Amino acid sequence: MQRLLTPVKRILQLTRVMQETSLTPARLLPVAHQRFSTASAIPLAKTDTWPKDVGILALEVYFPAQYVDQTDLEKYNNVEAGKYTVGLGQTRMGFCSVQEDINSLCLTVVQRLMERIQLPWDSVGRLEVGTETIIDKSKAVKTVLMELFQDSGNTDIEGIDTTNACYGGTASLFNAANWMESSSWDGLRGTHMENAYDFYKPNLASEYPIVDGKLSIQCYLRALDRCYTSYRKKIQNQWKQAGSDRPFTLDDLQYMIFHTPFCKMVQKSLARLMFNDFLSASSDTQISLYKGLEAFGGLKLEDTYTNKDLDKALLKASQDMFDKKTKASLYLSTHNGNMYTSSLYGCLASLLSHHSAQELAGSRIGAFSYGSGLAASFFSFRVSQDASPGSPLDKLVSSTSDLPKRLASRKCVSPEEFTEIMNQREQFYHKVNFSPPGDTNSLFPGTWYLERVDEQHRRKYARRPV
Amino acid sequence: MQRLLTPVKRILQLTRVMQETSLTPARLLPVAHQRFSTASAIPLAKTDTWPKDVGILALEVYFPAQYVDQTDLEKYNNVEAGKYTVGLGQTRMGFCSVQEDINSLCLTVVQRLMERIQLPWDSVGRLEVGTETIIDKSKAVKTVLMELFQDSGNTDIEGIDTTNACYGGTASLFNAANWMESSSWDGLRGTHMENAYDFYKPNLASEYPIVDGKLSIQCYLRALDRCYTSYRKKIQNQWKQAGSDRPFTLDDLQYMIFHTPFCKMVQKSLARLMFNDFLSASSDTQISLYKGLEAFGGLKLEDTYTNKDLDKALLKASQDMFDKKTKASLYLSTHNGNMYTSSLYGCLASLLSHHSAQELAGSRIGAFSYGSGLAASFFSFRVSQDASPGSPLDKLVSSTSDLPKRLASRKCVSPEEFTEIMNQREQFYHKVNFSPPGDTNSLFPGTWYLERVDEQHRRKYARRPV
Repeated sequence: MQRLLTPVKRILQLTRVMQETSLTPARLLPVAHQRFSTASAIPLAKTDTWPKDVGILALEVYFPAQYVDQTDLEKYNNVEAGKYTVGLGQTRMGFCSVQEDINSLCLTVVQRLMERIQLPWDSVGRLEVGTETIIDKSKAVKTVLMELFQDSGNTDIEGIDTTNACYGGTASLFNAANWMESSSWDGLRGTHMENAYDFYKPNLASEYPIVDGKLSIQCYLRALDRCYTSYRKKIQNQWKQAGSDRPFTLDDLQYMIFHTPFCKMVQKSLARLMFNDFLSASSDTQISLYKGLEAFGGLKLEDTYTNKDLDKALLKASQDMFDKKTKASLYLSTHNGNMYTSSLYGCLASLLSHHSAQELAGSRIGAFSYGSGLAASFFSFRVSQDASPGSPLDKLVSSTSDLPKRLASRKCVSPEEFTEIMNQREQFYHKVNFSPPGDTNSLFPGTWYLERVDEQHRRKYARRPV
Repeated sequence: MQRLLTPVKRILQLTRVMQETSLTPARLLPVAHQRFSTASAIPLAKTDTWPKDVGILALEVYFPAQYVDQTDLEKYNNVEAGKYTVGLGQTRMGFCSVQEDINSLCLTVVQRLMERIQLPWDSVGRLEVGTETIIDKSKAVKTVLMELFQDSGNTDIEGIDTTNACYGGTASLFNAANWMESSSWDGLRGTHMENAYDFYKPNLASEYPIVDGKLSIQCYLRALDRCYTSYRKKIQNQWKQAGSDRPFTLDDLQYMIFHTPFCKMVQKSLARLMFNDFLSASSDTQISLYKGLEAFGGLKLEDTYTNKDLDKALLKASQDMFDKKTKASLYLSTHNGNMYTSSLYGCLASLLSHHSAQELAGSRIGAFSYGSGLAASFFSFRVSQDASPGSPLDKLVSSTSDLPKRLASRKCVSPEEFTEIMNQREQFYHKVNFSPPGDTNSLFPGTWYLERVDEQHRRKYARRPV
């Protein structure tokens, strides 16, 4: 229903490239596609059908302002005449100077496109970058592009970077078209993306990131506030259309899981959501429902990221809720540590492993995903009603029940041995023509392992028998 | 319509992670989600609606077989007791040895999942990897996972890698759900993915790839054959259901565009498609329609990747078709060189810039996308019928008409200057605390450029006035 009642959101899909071959060092050309459907013409009753004719409505092409003539280059490189011009079929070759990189090229092409077609910055709902040029192993190009949207206040733009050599552009085109055809187009989730340097991996030769710990926590909490605000607004709009005018609060979620850099951060985050609920509540509700928070009613979200008195009061006020809604989801993180990309889904598995299908059936599980740089979403899972034996829910829950046992079956190694293995990882990080040392019997049965990296960096894997 | 008539394709979505912080060097945990809808229960008449309740039906969690106790580590690191166990809320920390990497972890978790739920390998239609662990800047983890599907013969599996710090898992989850809800689920495109080392970038500290040129051309042509075969099969099935039983050939495409590593490769590829048509044709048609190819009727596709006599005959036989359907699309590549990820879309822009809206209206444009490693798709664009002044098609085509003029307005630099700039790129590739040299007036108006990289690798950009 939302599809027709909100401003038309559009897709901005961006395919980008930097050419780097051993023969011809660096040339560049970006292309952006701006695509949106005619969805607003679909009658209200049919909003759950695919919009027709999703496609490309605008294209932007950018290339650098200089080129080298290929006949000249044949002479200069002392190769036979025609090698490039006839053999490759190429007369000129554009290339980038050091003033341009993957980020600047994308900034240029997005801004040119938006200006040329006069598309309002706040009307974009998705933007994805397809590239094979990695200048940071963690921070997506997409996050840098969020700078362009800053003045519009639009940070709810889905899509990040997608990569596989020259196929990234096509993958992002397919993803964007799927998004247009799906219910996600105006789905119930709040996304916040912005350009931040809180945790990133610009040193490509290193396994380690650059981390600004304090900034990263602030970014996480700000993103949480923004995403939750947006999610609540959307669900309240849906309720309003259905005739119910009441605020959404954590009471509407039976469970709440979070991306978990470390477990304490999650407890603080749940407390933070309660603070959001508290600030949105009426004075009466503030007094009756949120004991111990009376002193903080006049504060603003953005002024409280380092308020320790508030933190303490919130942790206390939300302790029961934490024990009930979130604690079980931290089992895996507690026993395994930060899991990065899979962290949120490790929490989901932990939650399932600690509850019965009957307990979970029909519940709504809130989920907050965060990636530095930054990209974040608040969304929710609805658990199916059917918890009968053999039901999909029953099977899913059963499959996670051995988590504690599996975790307990791991081998404990000493800090000395741990340090030695970490040193090995550093030592072998870029090594070629080698087979990793170690006994494969120390792996769980059925585990794949790296058998060899050959002199051409090609990797061979083998599997320990089940 | 296809949704109900082909074997149920399923989504395998995989979120993966390798943890690397300056504090705690390396821990690992992958999670895989296997999700499919109950789409097959939807009545035939409603196949253009969203399937209901797309979600997670299975989860697989894997963690390494060893951990280090956090109380032990507090003592070993000589930090205050409770720093990790209470401060971070963590009692144990799993980590990987050198025997495991992002690829092996994903291999393990996918295989465990498939075996546990006994899902046939040929029933998977999409698999996407969300990770922040880059061990190759070009080759996706997804391509390595294709090894697992090899015996089943299933190479038509969409989705590649998606990245932004810890958000990649959620992005791939959203993409997978969108795919389920979209028409792409059984859309008209042929995809081929496999694990190949034809072109890749395993040396993260270098701008340059490792290239096996001969292998890459063979991989490209084999992928083209496979994708085209799959695309033709799907469209012929659609026609059959509509009552028409005839083969699809290049005659059904008014234009054909290709990923363009170099222009000659594209001409060879169009010729290759004609060879596909030729081999599928009846003897009568072979003789009447494909002059000069008589001698090659008994060959098999897979035996002809280096047959020079065949290449010559095919280039000759397809020359007219090339001039008519493909040549115009190579304008940008001819004048700018290889454009990598954006290459195919540069061809689309070139094609549009060389034809009027009237000429293009109602046509079907075939498109072949290829990324080494490898991932490839054959699909098509349908151009809208309405070419009237002010129509979306008219606007799109008009917007590309200045391409030749813009290309001509670039500055020609000498091979010496080109070489100097390439050397600068190498020299500055990893440099921090610097501002790129060069006159920003040499950029096109409105171009963003890299202004500074600070000592923390943070990048600042500025824009040349329009």
